[in-house]
Amino acid sequence: MKLDDMIIVSVDDHVVEPRDLFERHLPDKYRDLAPHVIRREDGSDVWQFMEHQIPNVGLNAVAGRPREEYGVDPTQYEEMREGCFDIEKRILDMNANGLLGSLCFPSLPGFAGRLFGSLEDKQAARILTEAYNDWHIDEWCGTFPGRFIPLAIPAIWDPEVTAAEIRRVAKKGCRAITFPENPVPLGLPSLHTDHWDPVWKACEDEGTVVCMHIGSSSQLAVTSMDAPFDVTILLQPMNIVQCAADLVYSPIWRKFPGVKIALSEGGIGWIPYFLERLDHTDDVHSTWTGADFGGQRPSEFFLEHVILCFISDPVGLELLRDHIGVEHVTVEIDYPHSDTTWPRAPETLMDEFSAAGLTDDEIDAVTHLNAMREFHYDPFSVIPREDCTVGALRAQAIGVDVEPKAMAKRDRADHDGPITIKDITVTA
Amino acid sequence: MKLDDMIIVSVDDHVVEPRDLFERHLPDKYRDLAPHVIRREDGSDVWQFMEHQIPNVGLNAVAGRPREEYGVDPTQYEEMREGCFDIEKRILDMNANGLLGSLCFPSLPGFAGRLFGSLEDKQAARILTEAYNDWHIDEWCGTFPGRFIPLAIPAIWDPEVTAAEIRRVAKKGCRAITFPENPVPLGLPSLHTDHWDPVWKACEDEGTVVCMHIGSSSQLAVTSMDAPFDVTILLQPMNIVQCAADLVYSPIWRKFPGVKIALSEGGIGWIPYFLERLDHTDDVHSTWTGADFGGQRPSEFFLEHVILCFISDPVGLELLRDHIGVEHVTVEIDYPHSDTTWPRAPETLMDEFSAAGLTDDEIDAVTHLNAMREFHYDPFSVIPREDCTVGALRAQAIGVDVEPKAMAKRDRADHDGPITIKDITVTA
Repeated sequence: MKLDDMIIVSVDDHVVEPRDLFERHLPDKYRDLAPHVIRREDGSDVWQFMEHQIPNVGLNAVAGRPREEYGVDPTQYEEMREGCFDIEKRILDMNANGLLGSLCFPSLPGFAGRLFGSLEDKQAARILTEAYNDWHIDEWCGTFPGRFIPLAIPAIWDPEVTAAEIRRVAKKGCRAITFPENPVPLGLPSLHTDHWDPVWKACEDEGTVVCMHIGSSSQLAVTSMDAPFDVTILLQPMNIVQCAADLVYSPIWRKFPGVKIALSEGGIGWIPYFLERLDHTDDVHSTWTGADFGGQRPSEFFLEHVILCFISDPVGLELLRDHIGVEHVTVEIDYPHSDTTWPRAPETLMDEFSAAGLTDDEIDAVTHLNAMREFHYDPFSVIPREDCTVGALRAQAIGVDVEPKAMAKRDRADHDGPITIKDITVTA
Repeated sequence: MKLDDMIIVSVDDHVVEPRDLFERHLPDKYRDLAPHVIRREDGSDVWQFMEHQIPNVGLNAVAGRPREEYGVDPTQYEEMREGCFDIEKRILDMNANGLLGSLCFPSLPGFAGRLFGSLEDKQAARILTEAYNDWHIDEWCGTFPGRFIPLAIPAIWDPEVTAAEIRRVAKKGCRAITFPENPVPLGLPSLHTDHWDPVWKACEDEGTVVCMHIGSSSQLAVTSMDAPFDVTILLQPMNIVQCAADLVYSPIWRKFPGVKIALSEGGIGWIPYFLERLDHTDDVHSTWTGADFGGQRPSEFFLEHVILCFISDPVGLELLRDHIGVEHVTVEIDYPHSDTTWPRAPETLMDEFSAAGLTDDEIDAVTHLNAMREFHYDPFSVIPREDCTVGALRAQAIGVDVEPKAMAKRDRADHDGPITIKDITVTA
């Protein structure tokens, strides 16, 4: 396969919400309640909501900036590439990267959407959640039909309200929802309870994919407070193994076998070892623990119910065919976060596919066919297939400048010694 | 290579301390202070020490028992295979498994040896530590010369005392010490401080290997209190990735490059993905975090300083040559814990070596040559090489009965629903 002939769908990107997010989707009486952007004295733009101030952390919007400017300080809109928050510019950046389709995670309300739940008035919290989802579906995704897989946030404080929201947005064509990879650190019941059954039931009924993004429990991987922050950066994605272990032993798939769960930004290189340990644990211990997979190997049971993805993962791709299964894996770009392969995702992917010896059919499955099937996403009904390739999309982006540009408007604080977790701005 | 011609050295087994542990190595004035075994009303044998009672947990001594009898209830000596605690029987069990050499971790004082530190009288704590190590080196390992790699426990409450103990036992031929994979959960300074420098200095001077066993921080991998215990069993070994991340970013190897650290019971199948993420983290983030590997790839830096091992790990072996490096990997048997491959370790290993296509030289490196080099262990100076093979050792074990035997003396408590962390006896 030629690089220009690939068709790429990313199941994990991010949107930095624009200032006017709440302008067109809220009843008047809730307008004053909604988060709004203020500029702080330090020059950063933050969302003010009740007594909370929610910054946009630098690392969450570094696409197009040189690595010297990476960091975790709060940022301002003028320090971000416009594609982070402007849908017209986002499409240009997608085209420049040859990217057809994108699923975008939220920033402001948190991956688990819990921000609005801090309102005591739960009716207001529900209205803000619905407004957020309407903005995301109708404006962010709706402006360019066929280019996005919409993703709703839950009303995480109430499973019944969340279930209703899943059903409401499904009618608008949104069949993916975010959910914390472990609700316990958020003070909520675990995946091992029946508390969330209304959510799983709604997802099963509507064919809605549950997207559990790394870090969505708001729990950072911290070994000690004085460890260099690199330790946390390195461990955070690998922590998804805890979610995987919870899922496979939870009642969710036993009671609702139709529920598909995406391990967003989870990577794939760890999967074969995880499956090996899983089957081993079952062999050795199920006799006394009573774990029951109905005669199926737990590794098969797990793979049947998850959607995996990767950004760049040579080891995972080498093990793909024989140890994971081509049909379970999709790709992600992670724009505009620091791990993104933008604007050279096609080149990175093709290099890794070639090194791993993937066939054209396998490449098509991983780059777009699996994502289309699992997320009920049908771009070719809107855009002719021949206009969806890397080559065709990049031809529409001539003149888009993708070179790194220094954008810092302010001096950075000096650090004495390595940057540790204590130096980090922790967001909601 | 024929199975009978393999020579196997295990760098991770366990001893259940016998009742008479302290009888011959303590000055009289400390005799009453020493832990001693009592039988509780529930029929279990526990070590009484100050106000503590330390049980032998069932899963820690299940070799030779049927899987129906696995569990985490406290046990009694008569419910264990004698090879757990009797050195004469242990050698027979090693022979029956074709095992030449074994490094045995402690049970009673904890992997990090911290039990004795609970004494307010730190001089007494030191004397008990020395007595424990003398018993381990002179009796447990000394009875059958050439068959064991001795392993000392640290005086974990005091780095200077630990350093002195490392130097003392090195003179007796012991050049391995246990150390917690993360001291922080034990209330001790992290691996990122200079608190432990005297320990690393002594290890570097004496060529002493630091053995960090999974679980040695006494922190269990728990996602929620109501998760089935299988989740913890599955995650516990995978948690070693946190230790690996700490080590690579700690000052230890930068200040003491001669220190070798063994990730005991760490497995190997996760290593290639870890190395991929490590180099990626360095590529993307070192510019702003300041992480410095002196121009070396962090993956190389890591591998240069660790000793890896596995029990059964087909994925890891498949990736061994191209993604890990044959010279870094050793084997373990984990007798008498539940993950042990006893009494059929040679068969398990040979099957996995064959599937991975290892050459004879690679098999020799992994089964014994790497362990001999890294742990300064020279069995062939004591026992002729031709008497060290699987075939030769098994020939000495004719009549040893290795069939599983029911040994439970008491009824097990019934559980309603899955066994969770709340049902587990947590030891010191």
